[in-house]
Amino acid sequence: MSRVVLRDLAIVVTVDADDSVLHDVSIVVEDGVITAIGTGGAEFEPCDDDVVIDGRSRLALPGLVNLHTHLPMTLLRGIAEGVDLQGFLARVWAAEGAVMDPETVELGATLGTLESLLGGCTTQLDMYFHHEAAHRGAVAAGARHVGGPTFFDGPGPDGLSWDERIAGLRAWPEVLHATGGPEVPVAAMPHATYTNSVEHLSEVASVLREVAPTGILHTHVSENSAENDDVANRFGATPTQLLNRAGWFPTSPADGQRIVFGHGIHLGPQDIGVIEGRHVAVAHCPASNLKLTSGALDWTRWRAHGIRLGIGTDGCASSNDLDMWQAMRQAAHLAALTSGRPDIPATEILRAATIEGARALGMDHLIGSLEVGKRADIVLLDLDQPHLTPVHDVPALLVHAAGRGDVSDVLVDGRIVVSERRSTQVDTPELLARSRARARDAAAAATAVQEDR
Amino acid sequence: MSRVVLRDLAIVVTVDADDSVLHDVSIVVEDGVITAIGTGGAEFEPCDDDVVIDGRSRLALPGLVNLHTHLPMTLLRGIAEGVDLQGFLARVWAAEGAVMDPETVELGATLGTLESLLGGCTTQLDMYFHHEAAHRGAVAAGARHVGGPTFFDGPGPDGLSWDERIAGLRAWPEVLHATGGPEVPVAAMPHATYTNSVEHLSEVASVLREVAPTGILHTHVSENSAENDDVANRFGATPTQLLNRAGWFPTSPADGQRIVFGHGIHLGPQDIGVIEGRHVAVAHCPASNLKLTSGALDWTRWRAHGIRLGIGTDGCASSNDLDMWQAMRQAAHLAALTSGRPDIPATEILRAATIEGARALGMDHLIGSLEVGKRADIVLLDLDQPHLTPVHDVPALLVHAAGRGDVSDVLVDGRIVVSERRSTQVDTPELLARSRARARDAAAAATAVQEDR
Repeated sequence: MSRVVLRDLAIVVTVDADDSVLHDVSIVVEDGVITAIGTGGAEFEPCDDDVVIDGRSRLALPGLVNLHTHLPMTLLRGIAEGVDLQGFLARVWAAEGAVMDPETVELGATLGTLESLLGGCTTQLDMYFHHEAAHRGAVAAGARHVGGPTFFDGPGPDGLSWDERIAGLRAWPEVLHATGGPEVPVAAMPHATYTNSVEHLSEVASVLREVAPTGILHTHVSENSAENDDVANRFGATPTQLLNRAGWFPTSPADGQRIVFGHGIHLGPQDIGVIEGRHVAVAHCPASNLKLTSGALDWTRWRAHGIRLGIGTDGCASSNDLDMWQAMRQAAHLAALTSGRPDIPATEILRAATIEGARALGMDHLIGSLEVGKRADIVLLDLDQPHLTPVHDVPALLVHAAGRGDVSDVLVDGRIVVSERRSTQVDTPELLARSRARARDAAAAATAVQEDR
Repeated sequence: MSRVVLRDLAIVVTVDADDSVLHDVSIVVEDGVITAIGTGGAEFEPCDDDVVIDGRSRLALPGLVNLHTHLPMTLLRGIAEGVDLQGFLARVWAAEGAVMDPETVELGATLGTLESLLGGCTTQLDMYFHHEAAHRGAVAAGARHVGGPTFFDGPGPDGLSWDERIAGLRAWPEVLHATGGPEVPVAAMPHATYTNSVEHLSEVASVLREVAPTGILHTHVSENSAENDDVANRFGATPTQLLNRAGWFPTSPADGQRIVFGHGIHLGPQDIGVIEGRHVAVAHCPASNLKLTSGALDWTRWRAHGIRLGIGTDGCASSNDLDMWQAMRQAAHLAALTSGRPDIPATEILRAATIEGARALGMDHLIGSLEVGKRADIVLLDLDQPHLTPVHDVPALLVHAAGRGDVSDVLVDGRIVVSERRSTQVDTPELLARSRARARDAAAAATAVQEDR
């Protein structure tokens, strides 16, 4: 049995049902599971073989859950500035088509995962083609990576046929298992309703139901109004209505399949009627939405409609980083701006970035809070810093003052993947050098493609 | 002569008139002044007594200028959550009245300055009572601190009479000089038009003109619509019109006095007519404005009216930190949201946080860019990090991906005040311990004051 003892933690933000904040307690992790949180008992005394972390100047919180990203695009950080969503897609797809082979996807996924983990984000819902390579890359850095096959009607940047994509989905549970890494659900990710026919969307949902009854369907939905207009012009429906035609929302909410909408800013009343009471969550990506002028999600209104909200960063080509702290603060600010209410609790934002993200993925029994019996996805912050001093309000400190630079240690599934601000899994200098070289190729290829036009 | 050589810098973001970005150059600093930027010449070869910093994995940029803050409020971080501006003022004033003696103000200013410097912000326009103590505290941490006497009609939290305040302003140039610290202008800071009569506002402006013809007037203006309504109800005018009645905007723009409006979100067309062509800058504080639901400044519209824009954080009781990187990114995002334009250049935001802030303070001949002849306020970022890899676009990297945690070294006036992420000026553990103790007193006092009500 392997044990990790996080000893005498100054503050523990549990994100349990009562949003309990504990002071001066220890956490014991045994074989990847949290077995005790408290103080005084014999179980908190370290044994010889235990790994012990001194928590006296540390705050512990659950690993953050990034509910919408494209990790390999980390290699394209800053490649498409000054454009809206449609301009962005044109530029980025050109670059991707030119350089994103499986090896590059794997490299980009490792780079993005390393950034995520160093910033305290332990789980990512990651949509990218060459999904097997992306998963390998993310797992190599130590993350709980929810990936899966992507779908486009056309050949897509990976050049696969539709049948090859479906075959990839059928094979995915086994490949996922064989790759190893922390437990995650099976996911399938049609890119969007403007790149997948209703028939194809329907086929993906039913094949997923076959291979993984509690799997995740993830797609971009109503990201900006131009998308809504395009879909309305072509199909006389909203993206959500098309998904409904494709049978994505079964009549019984007891159905195990979970659905995550990327963005979901421009859902209309007709869409809300469709998804109400279903296992649908919206991944709110404020940085990307603002930068691309896609719009501002109306947080309190979506909540009032019972829409589950998680938080995501989107990919680095639009956001331009994977900073979930930035995303939390932006979400809080935008929620205040769109509602005019200054009293939205910081805990609501923190829950969205942890337990609600986990719930959206059907993983709230495993992760998303620090409670006995859960898997140990734990982030430690170094409190001994001027910008975290003093602490008058713990949730406000996390949402409005803390940041990625404060993360000292990260456990995923009980394994210490970041220790004293460094990855224990990745040769970081080597990875950065390789990423820079490959990014130069990407930039050259993108420029060449654009000049050809 | 003391020399510092920043050698072989990977990237130098000069923020000069052409927004030049240089690669693989060195910067030489002699007696606090930048004397050479380039490569190859004998002047770049270090001598025995030189301090040499290896810049091979570093990006250099001008120190950031925080154009509106209240540094001592750092001790009140998180003390007033869930409230709008007026609710905020009620709570914070209670806490301040109870605990903010000169010693506590000095402590809070040092804490806030330490946070600022570690995050790459070298200059702060800081409005706080007990201004001499605040200035001492900030200078002790090594900042270029623009402070000055504050003004209220009533006794204010410091209990001074009006005549004592005016006497404080007359004495300020000499006190400022005696305190030492890097060169800064003389400033006078009436709190707002709702806390100062027109007669008083007028007196402050003319006494300042006497004691410092190129001084800075700084006040809160049109921060939210409730402020505008309050002032309109009481005086039948806008805050800017009241300042005009007070003679703040002389007929000749050649007048040396500079005016900085804190916030300025809710300026109307009549206000813009008043300030157009004058030495007036608006300090945009997006985090505070959003959190308190004060509103969203319309960046491109203000720019189109020729209003000079700098960036600020406001105080930690509302923002809740002093992170100028966060403020830059928020400013960029809000500008995109309010204008619907995704093509606002990142350089425009970066200029606002550097040279435009310096210009607002009449200091652009001294600081705000990295050019030969300027004082050496220089920030180095550590580029060897996953979230700063790769670099496809340098300005976008700074505004949309970099952060306070990336700052490795900071020079103010040629002095290295932060070295390898640590203050060279302040005993940080001792300061944090003292701040925590005093913050506990503040929280207890604030609670007692509130319970008395």
